[in-house]
Amino acid sequence: MPQLEAITGSLLSEARFQTMCAQYCISLADVEKAHVNIRDFIHLTPVLTSSILNQVTGRNLFFKCELFQKTGSFKIRGALNAVRGLISATSEEKPKAVVTHSSGNHGQALSYAARLEGIPAYIVVPQTAPNCKKLAIQAYGASIVYSGNSDESRENVAKRIVEETEGTMVHPNQEPAVIAGQGTIAMEVLNQLPLVDALVVPVGGGGMAAGIAITVKALRPNVKVYAAEPLNADDCYQSKLRGELTPNPQPPDTIADGVKSSIGLNTWPIIRDLVDDVFTVTEDEIKYATQLVWERMKLLIEPTAGVGVAAVLSQHFQTVSAEVKNICIVLSGGNVDLTSLAWMRQAEKPAP
Amino acid sequence: MPQLEAITGSLLSEARFQTMCAQYCISLADVEKAHVNIRDFIHLTPVLTSSILNQVTGRNLFFKCELFQKTGSFKIRGALNAVRGLISATSEEKPKAVVTHSSGNHGQALSYAARLEGIPAYIVVPQTAPNCKKLAIQAYGASIVYSGNSDESRENVAKRIVEETEGTMVHPNQEPAVIAGQGTIAMEVLNQLPLVDALVVPVGGGGMAAGIAITVKALRPNVKVYAAEPLNADDCYQSKLRGELTPNPQPPDTIADGVKSSIGLNTWPIIRDLVDDVFTVTEDEIKYATQLVWERMKLLIEPTAGVGVAAVLSQHFQTVSAEVKNICIVLSGGNVDLTSLAWMRQAEKPAP
Repeated sequence: MPQLEAITGSLLSEARFQTMCAQYCISLADVEKAHVNIRDFIHLTPVLTSSILNQVTGRNLFFKCELFQKTGSFKIRGALNAVRGLISATSEEKPKAVVTHSSGNHGQALSYAARLEGIPAYIVVPQTAPNCKKLAIQAYGASIVYSGNSDESRENVAKRIVEETEGTMVHPNQEPAVIAGQGTIAMEVLNQLPLVDALVVPVGGGGMAAGIAITVKALRPNVKVYAAEPLNADDCYQSKLRGELTPNPQPPDTIADGVKSSIGLNTWPIIRDLVDDVFTVTEDEIKYATQLVWERMKLLIEPTAGVGVAAVLSQHFQTVSAEVKNICIVLSGGNVDLTSLAWMRQAEKPAP
Repeated sequence: MPQLEAITGSLLSEARFQTMCAQYCISLADVEKAHVNIRDFIHLTPVLTSSILNQVTGRNLFFKCELFQKTGSFKIRGALNAVRGLISATSEEKPKAVVTHSSGNHGQALSYAARLEGIPAYIVVPQTAPNCKKLAIQAYGASIVYSGNSDESRENVAKRIVEETEGTMVHPNQEPAVIAGQGTIAMEVLNQLPLVDALVVPVGGGGMAAGIAITVKALRPNVKVYAAEPLNADDCYQSKLRGELTPNPQPPDTIADGVKSSIGLNTWPIIRDLVDDVFTVTEDEIKYATQLVWERMKLLIEPTAGVGVAAVLSQHFQTVSAEVKNICIVLSGGNVDLTSLAWMRQAEKPAP
């Protein structure tokens, strides 16, 4: 039986834990099913280390390399789990289409997953998404449909396309099958790093954070789950602070384009209860951390993946107990638009 | 006993092979000693694959990730073997200093190795070397001494510093202990990839190519060793073509700054006899291959490492028998100057 009192740092009875879990849109069993569902089609990504980053932080850092994952980010896990679930659920015939709105990585992932299963995919993308992401979506054979930048505009366009194509919406972060798919990262990490003390996860819509939190707290409740978020898109931090779901008031301005979305109705209860803390980081901190990983680790992460690294490098993170020694940072993706690297030249080390 | 006839594609008697080997500055035994000498201080670097690059080339490609090596390139292998050899050879007292001339990676490596052993290091660097390499040398605690760009200028300045410091010269590619150290890459690859058919190695001064060729042809003579070289610095190709050592007539102009040096008196006989073929590639091919690895594999290789990838992507490489299926490309390093990325924006796919 897990040591339940450790789940959120307070005492919890077994009964209370079960009640809490019943409120969530997924359970560990869904993640375990997802793992079986997708493992033959994705990479078991490696975990790398860096002696220099260990020196800088005074911890043992481990980097889960989802930038090496199929389609260049962890998003294939959730997308493929969702698509394969649709097909087994509708055994009579395949769904007519799958549709989503996405800043890019989920779009690429859904395109790839849909093509694997021979289903047309329609991806709603804001005009401002990096060009390399749009090109990759098209390379996977999906159709792109443009929207405005707001969550609302993206959702409205997606709804229209679902109606027009009689397709099925696969939400990038609130779809339970997607959240369960992202949780498989934690199953791998707990196997690869039996002595891990904490996982650090960038949070946008919260699909990865929620999937990982469900998995970690069911299997190894003493292991901490920390979310990392741009200060310019700090809806998760604000929601935890206020104890209620508090979306970003306007489309956020951050270089970490993969975490511009706000957490939602399905991910919020899980994050509220099972994520131990949220660390916010400035744009300068994100740029500096991203460049540090490029220069020192030779890994071409996207700035969204740099958010987790920036969190661990931050002043605030020094308040985390020294007993939290072995820390696994999920490097969520590597889909950088190489033609727009101007930002990098000003990535000076932020003042402490 | 190795199947000697396969060594250079022609029939060779055991006696002839022994005679040939006696002419070389190192043997397999030196590489095996180097392996024991350095293995506890370096990374056993991983071998990665890319389904997209397999599709593009129609072969099974394997990428030996020396960009993840200590100091960001394979050069630490040779430098550390040389420094540790100096110390055990002069057991009375440590050498007063080590000196070298280097476009950067060997300089960083020697600085790191010297600091490990508590010896001062002086590194002669051309003014034009990438800034990140100079900074890294200084960060490892070594002293930088500037020279002109020609091989001659670099060697002259290095000689002067050796005299002034009563130090020991560690040549970046002609020093036998360095060549033996680089050969340990092949020992690892033959273990990691028992079914490998060929290794592809960027060649500048030829230390890595020679060390790998000695090792491969002694242990697995059927395995091919191919050198890859910028067309703008094709002294190795010209030397093989003419059957005599033919250095670059002037300092070459290539983005692959790690392979600007010419092969020399110690590496030439080994390359002449044991390297199966040399593939030259244009600057556009190098840029395109480098960017492809960045975008598709998310590995921040330096353009010098892109030379090997470009060779395998080249038209000329399609003449290599389809039986040479499993090909290991040594990604030699990842020390990219991130502030000078202007070249990348024009890296269009070269016309076939």
